[in-house]
Parts: sequence; structure tokens; C-alpha cells
Amino acid sequence: MTSEEIRIAKLRFRDDLFNDTLPFWLDRCIDEEHGGYFTAFDRDGTRLQTDKSVWFQGRFAWMLATIADQVDPREYWLKQARSGIDFLTRHCIDRDGRYFFLVTRDGQPLRKRRYVFSECFAAMAYAAYGKAADSDEHLQMAIDLFRNIRHYTGPDSKLPPKINPRVRAMKSLATPMILIGVGQEVRKATHLQDCNEVIDHCIEEIRRDFMKEDLDCVLENVGMRGEVIDTFDGRLVNPGHSIELAWFLMEEARQRDLPDVASLGQQILDWSLELGWDRQHGGLYYFRDCQGLPCAEYWHDMKFWWPHAEAIIATLLAWRMTGDDKYWNWHKTIFDWSYEHFADPEFGEWFGYLHRDGSLSSTMKGNQWKGPFHLPRMQFYCWQLLEEVIHAQPV
Amino acid sequence: MTSEEIRIAKLRFRDDLFNDTLPFWLDRCIDEEHGGYFTAFDRDGTRLQTDKSVWFQGRFAWMLATIADQVDPREYWLKQARSGIDFLTRHCIDRDGRYFFLVTRDGQPLRKRRYVFSECFAAMAYAAYGKAADSDEHLQMAIDLFRNIRHYTGPDSKLPPKINPRVRAMKSLATPMILIGVGQEVRKATHLQDCNEVIDHCIEEIRRDFMKEDLDCVLENVGMRGEVIDTFDGRLVNPGHSIELAWFLMEEARQRDLPDVASLGQQILDWSLELGWDRQHGGLYYFRDCQGLPCAEYWHDMKFWWPHAEAIIATLLAWRMTGDDKYWNWHKTIFDWSYEHFADPEFGEWFGYLHRDGSLSSTMKGNQWKGPFHLPRMQFYCWQLLEEVIHAQPV
Repeated sequence: MTSEEIRIAKLRFRDDLFNDTLPFWLDRCIDEEHGGYFTAFDRDGTRLQTDKSVWFQGRFAWMLATIADQVDPREYWLKQARSGIDFLTRHCIDRDGRYFFLVTRDGQPLRKRRYVFSECFAAMAYAAYGKAADSDEHLQMAIDLFRNIRHYTGPDSKLPPKINPRVRAMKSLATPMILIGVGQEVRKATHLQDCNEVIDHCIEEIRRDFMKEDLDCVLENVGMRGEVIDTFDGRLVNPGHSIELAWFLMEEARQRDLPDVASLGQQILDWSLELGWDRQHGGLYYFRDCQGLPCAEYWHDMKFWWPHAEAIIATLLAWRMTGDDKYWNWHKTIFDWSYEHFADPEFGEWFGYLHRDGSLSSTMKGNQWKGPFHLPRMQFYCWQLLEEVIHAQPV
Repeated sequence: MTSEEIRIAKLRFRDDLFNDTLPFWLDRCIDEEHGGYFTAFDRDGTRLQTDKSVWFQGRFAWMLATIADQVDPREYWLKQARSGIDFLTRHCIDRDGRYFFLVTRDGQPLRKRRYVFSECFAAMAYAAYGKAADSDEHLQMAIDLFRNIRHYTGPDSKLPPKINPRVRAMKSLATPMILIGVGQEVRKATHLQDCNEVIDHCIEEIRRDFMKEDLDCVLENVGMRGEVIDTFDGRLVNPGHSIELAWFLMEEARQRDLPDVASLGQQILDWSLELGWDRQHGGLYYFRDCQGLPCAEYWHDMKFWWPHAEAIIATLLAWRMTGDDKYWNWHKTIFDWSYEHFADPEFGEWFGYLHRDGSLSSTMKGNQWKGPFHLPRMQFYCWQLLEEVIHAQPV
């Protein structure tokens, strides 16, 4: 690729972020009355419900604060981030310190779950906001919450697992993966020493227990010592999830100069593209079975927006780190397929849910699970990465 | 339709039941070592996991005992039913009297849920087995469990709802609906007086709170006094579920000569076919939004086997009760679409999961949710109903 191609690609990511994705959300998602963000919208922006996803209070506040740290006018972006931050602290924390999963528009608790993802996204938001707004209070909140999350994901956790651990103890890739992601964000803002230790421990656990050289994949669920469990859950691979993990690892590798970890990330990316890409219709499958057996989840072969956003990041980063054209070609292939199938030229942003053949399953732009996170993060990350490439090039 | 057509249709249902559906399962699903039934199989019968669904221990035992009550050799069918009955009583009951949801092959508890469907299918199995085997012990177990279920679904239930009831109290159509279904089965076996009372109460609740004349549909979730809640969950319609309810109501109407209840059932069937039938590709959608907005569930537009089995029953019964050709025509349309798309001529039985356009999404024949219940029940019920039609015809 020529430097002109790189420059055009960079402008495209930046333009899509500021003139397509963010306006779709900012025009309608901020609740001026109660604070916080709505995320349930149809393609044209029709609001589908007012209940608020706690995940997205953290996720969008993180995105906005991250932008505020790079882009003017800082005060504007900080104000939008603050709406979610304040809604989180006022309404989303239960008496036991854990966070809810879903609340009403005015912040009454509707649902709490046994997972700590709400807490993870809140910690990322506090970290990014604390850094961008230079707020020690929020940095401390991020540190405290990160320690809380370690407790809840550790051996002394009191959160009941779905499957009886006395009969079949299992662990899930989501835990070490989200700890790496949150650890990276908290470290960026606070320089907390614990972060490297937590991240190194998670990388080691993934390498030892979840990566399966003989199966060429990363499993989603394994026994406590990495045993392969011969059930639907035990054979499950989520290529989008693995690809997201791949770029977390590559990012860690380049921040701390860890070539082994870079290879690990590239290995996982290679496996996941091989297993996850649909050679017949294009796009990434949602789930695969590591032995090629059927998956139990109904939507196993649907094409969701987020694995594609993650794959656009991961392939671009792998190209940046290796210079290998195959990653640039994958990046272009996935980018083009995604824009052709997910983008909505009429009302902006991306659709979220396609059938296996790429046809539209739903006109929804947002719900409890889809909101301003994977897509704007991809656009922001790729823009910044290409900016770096351009500046690193010889004059 | 001529009496010759009716005779051919009857033979088809009977033949499919005994020479296609039941052999697929009986050849591989009974665990000779630990008792009980496996249900997870690929199209060719390859076993996909050995964990046992508690729902299906009850459901298949019910089906087998129901067949035993009509068909020789009774001892053979009772023996197969007994395998599930004994597995249920030995391994599937927790110390608090509630039933588990998933257990290992040898009966160790893996998962328990906050719903009483496991209990409902067990009660149906005990009732049918008690009747067919003339076992007072099992009839009493059915009565005791039915009373327990009433307690757990009543106002003093201690089962925690998913959504915080102090903020948004909701109730679900599944509760009165399953109580009608279980009540009918328990009554058939035990002549328990409470059953009519429970069933009448449920019918009244459905008529008053879940049926919405102004929306032409039955809602899946409403407020405690039938309020329409303007969220994804509150607008949700499950056409297959409504159609199953429709034939429960029509069956109740003809057993007890209740013309109002017959009209209710036919009304619900008409609404559900209108809202649920896909005019572009054929087949029944899984979910619809009562206002035509997008549904949040990813599989909303997929075609699942079970709504089609339920619709084949409901339309045949509506035709039998009204003599209206439109129901015979619907019956033929749904029957033909189903056999064209779900049936597997190579290995028998039906596939379970199709994309909206009718193409195959998964080759699975069974899992925790799909097993020998909806399809053999449809074949059994329609065979019996047509038998009745033939004998009722003037000589």
C-alpha cells in the first residue's frame, strides 16, 4: 500500500467517526432530563425503549473521555462523558458495591447479573475520564473498582457460577480477557503497578489453559486446569472474541516490547480468521465448534457488527507490527465486506445483525448490546494507528 | 377434503410417528447404563453431548406413557417411559423439592433455574405414566407436584423474577399457559377437581390481561394488571407460543363444551397466523413486535420446528371444530411448508433451525431444547384427531 492509500484510509476512519458514528448517537442518546445514555434505536433513530444499559453508561463515557483526551474542544467531549459517569455513580451501584445491569430511565434498578462486566466498563470510564479531566477522584474510583473486579473474578469470589462448580468446575475466556482490557485502560490513566502483574497473569492463563495448539483455536470455556470439556459449551469458539483478544495481546506486546506476546496475538488472529471467516458468503461467523460439530446457539452463523469491527483493528495492527501484506489484505477484505453489508448510507452508523448470507436480519441500530462502543472504538483506534504510521514513515 | 384425503392424512401422521420420529430417538436416546434420555444429536444421530435435559426426561416420558395408553405392546412403551420417570425421581429433584434443569449423564446436578418448567413436564409424565401403568403412586406424585407448581407460580412464590418487581412488576404468558397444559394432563389421569378451577382461572387471566383486542395479538409479557409495557419485552409476541395456547383453549372448549373458550382459541389462532406467517418466504416467524418495531432477540425471524408443529395441530383442530375450509387450507399450507423445509429424508426426523428464507441453519436434530416432544406430540395428536373424524362421519 502506498502512503497515499494510508493517508486516505486514515481520513476515512476519522471522518466516519466524527461525521457519521458519533453524530448518530450524540443527536439522540443523551438524556437531558436524567443524565446518562439511551442506546435502543431503530435505523432512523426512532427510540425503541428508555431503559438504560449499565454497560453502555460506562462504554460510551469511556469512548467520549478517550476522545476528549485527544481532540478539541475538550470541554465539549468531557461534558458528554460526564453525563454517563454521573449517572453511573448516582444510579448504577447497588448497596454491596456491585453494579446493576439494567436500570430505568430515571435510574431505578431493573436487573443485576452474576457477571462483573458492568463494573469493568465503569472502571474503564472512570480511568479515561480521570485522565482527560485531570480528576484524582475518578482515577481513584478506577483503581478501587479495578481491585474490586479482581476480587470478584478471583478464587474468593462469591458470585455463583451458572454451572454447579462442585460437579463441573469451568472457567471462561471472558474473565482474563476483560481483565487485560481493563488493566490496560487503568494503567494508561493511573500508572498503577498492579496492572502489569494482573495482565501478565491473564496472558499466562490464556496461553496455558485456553489456547489449544492441537485444535488451532482459543476455547471460550475450559476446565479449571484447561481441560477440554466435550459439551456444546466446552467445544465453543467465538472468533470475534478471539480476534478482540488478539489485538489486546498485540497492543500489550508493543507497549512493553514483548515479542512472545506479539507472536501469541498473531497466532490467535491467524487461527480465528481461518476458523471464523465464511468462505461461501464472506463475513465472520459468530460461533464455531472446535470439532466442526453444530453449535447450540441459534445465531451461531449470523454476522454481527462487532466481530468485524474487532477484526478491522486486529488485522491493521498485525500489519503495522509485522509489515506482512497478508494482514493488510485481510484488513481490506474485512473492511470492504463490513461497509458493504453493515453500513447504512441512508441514516448513518451500522446495522448490527445480518443473516449468514449477509442479508439484513434487523433494522435496529442499538439495544442493550449494541451501542456506541465497538464501531467508534474501531474508527478511533485505526485513525490513531494510521496517524502513527504516517509519522513514522521516512520523509 | 374427501374422506379419502382424511384417511391418507391420518395414515401419514401415524406412519411418520412410528416409522420415522420415534425410531430416530429410540434407537439412540435411552441411556442403558444410567437410565433417562439423551437428546443432543446431529442429523445422522452422532451424539453431541451426554448431559441430560430435565425438561426432556419429563417430556419424553410423558409422550411414551401417552402412547402406551393407546398402543400395544403396552409393556414395551411403559418400559421406555419408566426409564425417564425413574431418572427424574432418582436424580432430578433438589433437597427443596424443586427440580434441576440440567444434570450430568449419571445424574449429578449441573444447573437449576428460576422457572418451574422442569416441574411441569415431570408432573405431566407422572400423570400419563400413572394412568397408563395404573400406578396410584405416580398419580399421587403428579397431584403433589401440580400443587407445588401452583404454589411456585402463585403470589407467595419465592422464586426471584428476572426483573426487579419493586420497580417493574411483570408477568409472563408462559405461566397461565403451562398451567392449562399441565392441568389438562393431570385431570385426564386423576380427575382431580382442582384442575378445572386452575384452568378457568388461567383462561380468565389470559383473556383479561394478555389478549389485546386493539393490537390483534396475545402479548408474552404484561404488567400485573395487564398493562402494556413499552419496551422490547413488553411489545413481544411469540406466534408459535400463542398458537400452542390456541389449541390448548380449543381442546378445553371441546372437552367441557365451552363455546366462548372455543371462540377465544380461534381468535388467537387467527391473530397469530396473520401476524406470524411470513408472506415472503413462508413459515412462521419466531418473534414479532406488536407495533411492528424490531425485536431484540437475534433469532426473531428464524423458522423453528416447534411453532410449525403447534400450528399443524391448531389448524387441524380449528377445522374439526368449525368445519371452516380456511383452517384446512392453513393446515395443508403449514404441513407442506414444514415437510418441505424441516424434514430430513436422509436420516429421518426434523431439523430444528432454519434461516428466515427456509435454508438450513443447523444440522442438529436435538439439544437441550429440541428433543422428542413437539414433533411426536403433533403426529400423535393429529392421528388421533383424524381417527375421531373418520369415526364421527356418517356411514
